[in-house]
Amino acid sequence: MEIITSSQNRFIKMVASLKEKKFRDELGLFSIEGVRLVEEAAQANWPVEACIYITGAEEDQRVQAMLVLLQSKNCRIIEVSAAIYGKITEVKQPQGIMAIMKKRENRLVDCLINVQKPLLVVLDEVQDPGNVGTIIRTAAAAGCTGVILTKGCADVFGAKAVRATMGSLFYIPIFEGFSHDEVVNYLNKYDIHILATSLENSTTYFRTDFNRSVAIVFGNEGNGVSKKLTEVAKERLHIPLLGNVESLNVAASAAVILYEAVRQRQ
Amino acid sequence: MEIITSSQNRFIKMVASLKEKKFRDELGLFSIEGVRLVEEAAQANWPVEACIYITGAEEDQRVQAMLVLLQSKNCRIIEVSAAIYGKITEVKQPQGIMAIMKKRENRLVDCLINVQKPLLVVLDEVQDPGNVGTIIRTAAAAGCTGVILTKGCADVFGAKAVRATMGSLFYIPIFEGFSHDEVVNYLNKYDIHILATSLENSTTYFRTDFNRSVAIVFGNEGNGVSKKLTEVAKERLHIPLLGNVESLNVAASAAVILYEAVRQRQ
Repeated sequence: MEIITSSQNRFIKMVASLKEKKFRDELGLFSIEGVRLVEEAAQANWPVEACIYITGAEEDQRVQAMLVLLQSKNCRIIEVSAAIYGKITEVKQPQGIMAIMKKRENRLVDCLINVQKPLLVVLDEVQDPGNVGTIIRTAAAAGCTGVILTKGCADVFGAKAVRATMGSLFYIPIFEGFSHDEVVNYLNKYDIHILATSLENSTTYFRTDFNRSVAIVFGNEGNGVSKKLTEVAKERLHIPLLGNVESLNVAASAAVILYEAVRQRQ
Repeated sequence: MEIITSSQNRFIKMVASLKEKKFRDELGLFSIEGVRLVEEAAQANWPVEACIYITGAEEDQRVQAMLVLLQSKNCRIIEVSAAIYGKITEVKQPQGIMAIMKKRENRLVDCLINVQKPLLVVLDEVQDPGNVGTIIRTAAAAGCTGVILTKGCADVFGAKAVRATMGSLFYIPIFEGFSHDEVVNYLNKYDIHILATSLENSTTYFRTDFNRSVAIVFGNEGNGVSKKLTEVAKERLHIPLLGNVESLNVAASAAVILYEAVRQRQ
């Protein structure tokens, strides 16, 4: 176990830099905070680089058990003062425990092995990190094969999105930074039907057949699915709006449609 | 049209106080911000008490049209400086337009008139204002009869919740501040089946019959539906979790279940 006492320490400065997407991308790392999230990470088969806690936090039994588990996995364990922790946290009232995680490089082909009828989610420039995280949580719950994010999406490894996933991002393959062309090429290559959500010229979602290899595209909060992905989609689908409402929240839409797929597939 | 130039003005002080639930309750008023929300309010049959805008905002055509509409409804129109608006706004980058709304006193009995098979939503101590607002938006879209909130819920008339409804709160009857006993008494009185979401001893939601008078109870983010409402429920239902996920976000759950009701009823 190490103790870091200077906020000028290079490791602490590196951790603080992870608040910015630019540095998360450069370093291939991201941070997660709070007892529950770090527990999820420790239990999942996901590489934990380091765990940082405020002096005293280890007196909590759950934290203690977690530190023992992480140490057994050769994870670096670092104790810091509350003042230093204050430099690296993104939470107003931190629980005083954080883990530094290595991003995983997933390959789409790997997650399709042994999957008879893939059910993929494509997020097309979904901008709100809460929506991105919540959809990943729902996709994991619905047993989806993976989630593909196009370049304009909120960063799934930012603090808000990670929190909204409630740890589910450790259990479902995520593919980020795809261009529209890459999405189309990959899905065509593996014979996966592209279904785009769209209010125009579209079928009611529960009349759509999800009992086959499909990728369902959900779009930007204001503008919906991009022209490109709407055009290449084999089918378009919509959720009927019975009340005086212009649209549903995109995370609510994803929940409705992904669970209709679950229902049809059971 | 009036111009207010002093931040010590009593009306301005009253508007600023609406940031707190205590004063919203005392005064029976709440505020909404942004062009889209005020437009929704102006178009809906909902009493707008006053509209406040920053000098210059009226140059925008949409704002202009809205002010004309509100004036024709005898709404008070007030122009203020950006500095004064800064005292009353709850938004970081305000669009410079706000409306003061009168809360509506809804009676459950009124919203049940001429409704053959009511579909009600009960929020049982749902604490996150974003979840409360998103569920109201989904309930309105699904054509629900009304939304009942128990005492422990986030205030639907707070800024965050109002924003998340995207204006749908003007189109669906909302009943707030109910005790558990009141919920049970009302629903029993009108012969409405109570269905509680619960992971224990429960039916899969898509095997539940929604084609009758039902009220579906969604619970607190951490603890689920209260013991009281779980016990009195005629049936319990759950959403199957296929992946390694402990639970769904409550607004995602509500979307899945309310739209299953829509599907069954069509």
